[in-house]
Amino acid sequence: MRIDGAAFTTIWPGADGTSVSIIDQTRLPHRFEILEIADVAAAARAIKDMQVRGAPLIGVMAAYGLALAMRADPSDDNLKRASAALAATRPTAVNLQWAIEAMTQLLAPLPPPARFKAAFDRAGEIAREDVALCEAIGVHGLGLIAAVAARKPSGAAVNLLTHCNAGWLATVDWGTATAPIYKAHDAGLNVHVFVDETRPRNQGAALTAFELGQHGVPHTVIADNAGGHLMQHGEIDLVIVGTDRTTASGDVCNKIGTYLKALAAFDNGVPFYVAAPSPSIDFTILDGVRDIPIEIRSAEEVTHISGLGADGDVARVQLTPKGSGALNPAFDVTPARLVTGLITERGVIVADEAALARAFPERIILRG
Amino acid sequence: MRIDGAAFTTIWPGADGTSVSIIDQTRLPHRFEILEIADVAAAARAIKDMQVRGAPLIGVMAAYGLALAMRADPSDDNLKRASAALAATRPTAVNLQWAIEAMTQLLAPLPPPARFKAAFDRAGEIAREDVALCEAIGVHGLGLIAAVAARKPSGAAVNLLTHCNAGWLATVDWGTATAPIYKAHDAGLNVHVFVDETRPRNQGAALTAFELGQHGVPHTVIADNAGGHLMQHGEIDLVIVGTDRTTASGDVCNKIGTYLKALAAFDNGVPFYVAAPSPSIDFTILDGVRDIPIEIRSAEEVTHISGLGADGDVARVQLTPKGSGALNPAFDVTPARLVTGLITERGVIVADEAALARAFPERIILRG
Repeated sequence: MRIDGAAFTTIWPGADGTSVSIIDQTRLPHRFEILEIADVAAAARAIKDMQVRGAPLIGVMAAYGLALAMRADPSDDNLKRASAALAATRPTAVNLQWAIEAMTQLLAPLPPPARFKAAFDRAGEIAREDVALCEAIGVHGLGLIAAVAARKPSGAAVNLLTHCNAGWLATVDWGTATAPIYKAHDAGLNVHVFVDETRPRNQGAALTAFELGQHGVPHTVIADNAGGHLMQHGEIDLVIVGTDRTTASGDVCNKIGTYLKALAAFDNGVPFYVAAPSPSIDFTILDGVRDIPIEIRSAEEVTHISGLGADGDVARVQLTPKGSGALNPAFDVTPARLVTGLITERGVIVADEAALARAFPERIILRG
Repeated sequence: MRIDGAAFTTIWPGADGTSVSIIDQTRLPHRFEILEIADVAAAARAIKDMQVRGAPLIGVMAAYGLALAMRADPSDDNLKRASAALAATRPTAVNLQWAIEAMTQLLAPLPPPARFKAAFDRAGEIAREDVALCEAIGVHGLGLIAAVAARKPSGAAVNLLTHCNAGWLATVDWGTATAPIYKAHDAGLNVHVFVDETRPRNQGAALTAFELGQHGVPHTVIADNAGGHLMQHGEIDLVIVGTDRTTASGDVCNKIGTYLKALAAFDNGVPFYVAAPSPSIDFTILDGVRDIPIEIRSAEEVTHISGLGADGDVARVQLTPKGSGALNPAFDVTPARLVTGLITERGVIVADEAALARAFPERIILRG
């Protein structure tokens, strides 16, 4: 999508074909900086420190990370080491494990000298596949937004709510939750997005607001606390969020706080959709609340926050009193019963085991 | 309660009997500063700028504000002007209107020269009444906490969740939602409080964490987004929140985001109690979602935040990208159906019209 009028993706191969460039998302929205990632350690650090984040983008970064590892040392040992290092960066998103497994299956049978090129090519392919997945989600989701628009007075804005950043910055391009929004906006529909700021890392205020603003989509930032009130008063037509992992039964693991918005949407009859590209669906798990590991991140993400100071520098300030600790679970699970539908690359489907199995028959896992 | 080991209230008459002192709550938790309020303009500003906040404390401040106005000019005209100025400061909390009306009814029949002393005395009485209300709520709420403790393994912590600051800093002393917590802690029960940081003004992280910490109550700050997840995993035994206005049917208007926690508590079978001193009950209104005006505060409370910088100074930083607007509704309404009970000074009652009428028969309003 567009930044300052120019088309960007979140990750792209360097001109020399042996490195990869990313937008450093820890610096947004106040600074726009590009980082060159030249080895697997830098790739792992980029994931762990959230210079790249978002389940789909993490998968692509991991794939490129393995390619860079194969460039340095294409041995079996190093393939194992690099896979383990990348897998250890973040525990919740399934795309990371998915990408590492896909790459390992491709690379392990190859003779070491062939591995780097195969890996680099495959990483680029995964990136292009991700763009295609997101765009397909955009097309299917556009139908939902257009249907709401058709029920409203001509020209009245369709008000969407989204949580965290499941935008193009979380993917390679288009985003997941935002793909339908960009498609609708580009098609000339009047869309307006309420953006949850999404504490504690403020990916909504920092990233979603930034990318919507850069692309020209009307939006308003709200505190995470405000969505329920807006829904009670008919101010939200549609909620669309992303997912870090969706179970075979349609339970949705996403950024902490998503569950609260799903409850409010359900209580007020507001449709609650989850943009779920199939690589983020984990067919090995049924009960999301019980079985998805929830990453506990640093308490400092709660006790401190960064922003643009009066002097134009990015500064970090402490919010809590000395001596008060904090707990920082990064994700929660929204039970399938609260989800109106999953917007997948194969269409909008009901969030239950049968519908997921029908839509993705090749991925069904037989349970004993 | 205690700050640095010394007993404090949030507001107290100055030694000369003609001014009143407050703790400047906009400076907490990083600075502890006392302000002397000497006229009605300063009192109105203290309420509007939230140097004092919390429905009960606002009522007491308004009463003292009227007293200071009567000191300067005890005329009928000034009584009207001062009442109007104070009433215009904040629209949602009912205690403000209640205190102004109570004072006006007392003062209007008096000869002007008698008004200042009567007003100052009555303001002090309202403050003392508030302490008594809060302490009674503490005694009744203690029973709820003790009952939970009795069901847990001996010595296991009772985990409470609270939202915003309905602590002693929101009242004169004890607090409303915190009164049962202080009573339980002081009685030797093992209580631990999850403190919602409570964006956008962070009264939880800044004030509740501060006052619990100063009094020695174990607590953990969490993002507002985290409570649902914790409840899903059995980490919360009991939710207790305050209220800025409760309707005759038990709908609860409180800090934005309270409704989301009530939904999560209901969904997970976690008891959700509201500490509701009777001056915060508005018997003239039945439907809270429809009829309680919700204050829209400055967008800057969402787009900017203050905290302690690395240099030890309090600094304000911008969180959102240039060009992104924000919306800041300050309260929401939790329908009575989600409330397990109201902890009033007359005991714990069901949140419905019949129970409220039985508990406060003298305040029933006949509807046509």
